[in-house]
Amino acid sequence: MQTYISGIAAQEGKSATLKGWLYNIRSGGKIRFLLVRDGTGIIQCVASQADVGEETFELIDTLTQESSIEVTGTVRADKRAPGGYELVMTKLELVGRAADYPITPKEHGTAFLMENRHLWVRSRRQAAILRVRHEIVRAIRDFFDDRGFVLFDTPIFTPAACEGTSTLFETDYFGEKAYLTQSGQLYAESGAMALGKVYCFGPTFRAEKSKTRRHLIEFWMVEPEVAYLDLDGDMELAEDFVFYVVEQVLANRREELDIIERDTSPLEKIKKPFPRISYTECVDILNKAGHPFQWGNDLGGDEETIVSSQFESPVMVHHFPAEIKAFYMKNDPQDERLALGFDMLAPEGKGEIIGGGQREDDYDMLVKKIQAHNLPLEAFDWYLDLRKYGTVPHAGFGLGLERTVGWICGLSHVRETIPFPRMLHRLKP
Amino acid sequence: MQTYISGIAAQEGKSATLKGWLYNIRSGGKIRFLLVRDGTGIIQCVASQADVGEETFELIDTLTQESSIEVTGTVRADKRAPGGYELVMTKLELVGRAADYPITPKEHGTAFLMENRHLWVRSRRQAAILRVRHEIVRAIRDFFDDRGFVLFDTPIFTPAACEGTSTLFETDYFGEKAYLTQSGQLYAESGAMALGKVYCFGPTFRAEKSKTRRHLIEFWMVEPEVAYLDLDGDMELAEDFVFYVVEQVLANRREELDIIERDTSPLEKIKKPFPRISYTECVDILNKAGHPFQWGNDLGGDEETIVSSQFESPVMVHHFPAEIKAFYMKNDPQDERLALGFDMLAPEGKGEIIGGGQREDDYDMLVKKIQAHNLPLEAFDWYLDLRKYGTVPHAGFGLGLERTVGWICGLSHVRETIPFPRMLHRLKP
Repeated sequence: MQTYISGIAAQEGKSATLKGWLYNIRSGGKIRFLLVRDGTGIIQCVASQADVGEETFELIDTLTQESSIEVTGTVRADKRAPGGYELVMTKLELVGRAADYPITPKEHGTAFLMENRHLWVRSRRQAAILRVRHEIVRAIRDFFDDRGFVLFDTPIFTPAACEGTSTLFETDYFGEKAYLTQSGQLYAESGAMALGKVYCFGPTFRAEKSKTRRHLIEFWMVEPEVAYLDLDGDMELAEDFVFYVVEQVLANRREELDIIERDTSPLEKIKKPFPRISYTECVDILNKAGHPFQWGNDLGGDEETIVSSQFESPVMVHHFPAEIKAFYMKNDPQDERLALGFDMLAPEGKGEIIGGGQREDDYDMLVKKIQAHNLPLEAFDWYLDLRKYGTVPHAGFGLGLERTVGWICGLSHVRETIPFPRMLHRLKP
Repeated sequence: MQTYISGIAAQEGKSATLKGWLYNIRSGGKIRFLLVRDGTGIIQCVASQADVGEETFELIDTLTQESSIEVTGTVRADKRAPGGYELVMTKLELVGRAADYPITPKEHGTAFLMENRHLWVRSRRQAAILRVRHEIVRAIRDFFDDRGFVLFDTPIFTPAACEGTSTLFETDYFGEKAYLTQSGQLYAESGAMALGKVYCFGPTFRAEKSKTRRHLIEFWMVEPEVAYLDLDGDMELAEDFVFYVVEQVLANRREELDIIERDTSPLEKIKKPFPRISYTECVDILNKAGHPFQWGNDLGGDEETIVSSQFESPVMVHHFPAEIKAFYMKNDPQDERLALGFDMLAPEGKGEIIGGGQREDDYDMLVKKIQAHNLPLEAFDWYLDLRKYGTVPHAGFGLGLERTVGWICGLSHVRETIPFPRMLHRLKP
């Protein structure tokens, strides 16, 4: 019967068999301290020659890092032990002796670690980040599930290039051209008309030749879409959503944030309501901060960093110039130059984590916009149908999972936020 | 303030404003019965000329199917009304008049409905199926989350062709060839060595030119992988898992199963433990059923139907001939001709929903198998590393989501189990 380290407390004073890997070992005279990991935690196992016998004691001294072992012993509470418990060993069985493990406690270069990503995920820090990722995914799904949203998985293969083919991956689909999705939004809109409130959550792809700390070629995005929702309601939804996700991570993943050495005080300072500033106010902020910026330009990574650094909570920038936004955004009826869209910028200078807004719901206007963007009208016939058969005001947004994990974990690069990151020159392993 | 139909009970005797679409209308003298849907349900709204006024009453008679409307009125409990409530209308606002809606209550051909999938999802039956799909996804995630599994999202882009390129989609990845994943398993194995128990859950792709009721080109698969697990433990996990999923759907989605007209008695008859039969016993069953079948051949759809029809619960067929199974399966040490793998066949003749088993954990044996399958060894260097650095017995399985939804909903074809199915000649909309 296997005991997991995460559940070791229930075995206090009793015998337990752990099945895992040797993480590290310390020797002291007639005693050996084995750090054993099993994926759910790490525990110190204490072996004395008297307890385990001479043969096993000698075997222990031949064990290599990451060798797989089964250890049996008595669980003892010990306040000094990390995790509060240790195992007083009586038995050890070697399952698989590891060859010289390439990742040692010394510093390794990132390129080397990325090449060994299949092993690197075993390290405490990487495993902790992946657990936080899991928590964030769970919080995302719970948030929408608890509010009556219906999951609406949108397709990866799409027939038409929605915003130009330059950043799209293409494949042969039985003689036709198919493209890998960049966003499930257009499809999710059909879902909102059917089910009221929906979300999709899956991988998306951008064939961008950029090499930055914030970009992955393959990344996960969650995209809610709601019928009868306007820009204000959309921002409120985004605010409640991000607040909930942060709250859940703080409530359930303290241990992992400690391992990552994340200073949680910036996360604890986040308060509702989040600041909302217009794009035009944003231009002022930039110019006042000594960063000359002209109305009409798009915010880049540098601008996002400057603006978001001025606030403790995520900030929502709304009412961008319509010209720099996508064709499907609704223009502000008060000022046609502006789009009813918003971006949410994470604090600590982390930049955009959400983009969203109200969708164009007028058939004729949408036709005009598609044409103005030089997009093929016939590719959007089904999308236009949503305005032809019972159009309603509607809105939604997309949150990039890896950027959110990076921000919440306090990482400087998104490459550690997913098990196998896909980047410009990184397709392996 | 919008009231959703799903929450109408809380407004009994009070005023409520619904925002939705006109699903159907019946007329009788000075009274109109509007069936209004809002994505969360359908409710009957009763309009009398006295209550709504002449102008609105005339407007109602011009309303087309799927026109978007906001209706205000008083919520009244009525046992005869579907859902138990109706709305006595005082006000109606037309949001968007629908053009002639292509999907009418009359029968349409499947090709036509598939071309209008973006509208078809609005129908009661399709919406109900998608809600059951959501419930199944939620149950899947809850099952693994509650048992300490860590979500381990595996990549879509993979560098190497694992099992021949003939059924793989290929794309240009900045000058390299990349393939779309057929399974996250190999990557999930690295996760199991790091985190003990993991699962991945995402879209997978098979470029198969087959047109059957059980195949999609793009389908979702959940794949748990567990360190220190053998075939028996794996089958037990699969049994608990599928039983839990069925239980959750029966507990939470009765209404939707009613709409789909699913006879739930076969689902209610499912009991643990599920029958377990060896492949060799399976060959006997087929031959006794008058279906001549030779030991060594793989089970096809027909064979799966015959075998699964003999049991009320899902049946697990184990110990297949190693020759017909994938290179990564471990051979039975008792009989090297057999693989430690299993398939789970859904009842009611629905065929395979799960494939899984224990993985080859011996380095030298795995090298031999890769070579015997004529696969390029260098593509598997990282996968072999998992046997080099602390190998352990481990096992897992993959469950196809759409087949499971199809079985639980009692559908004859998988195309209705996902919002936008991708099939051999179906890439649009």
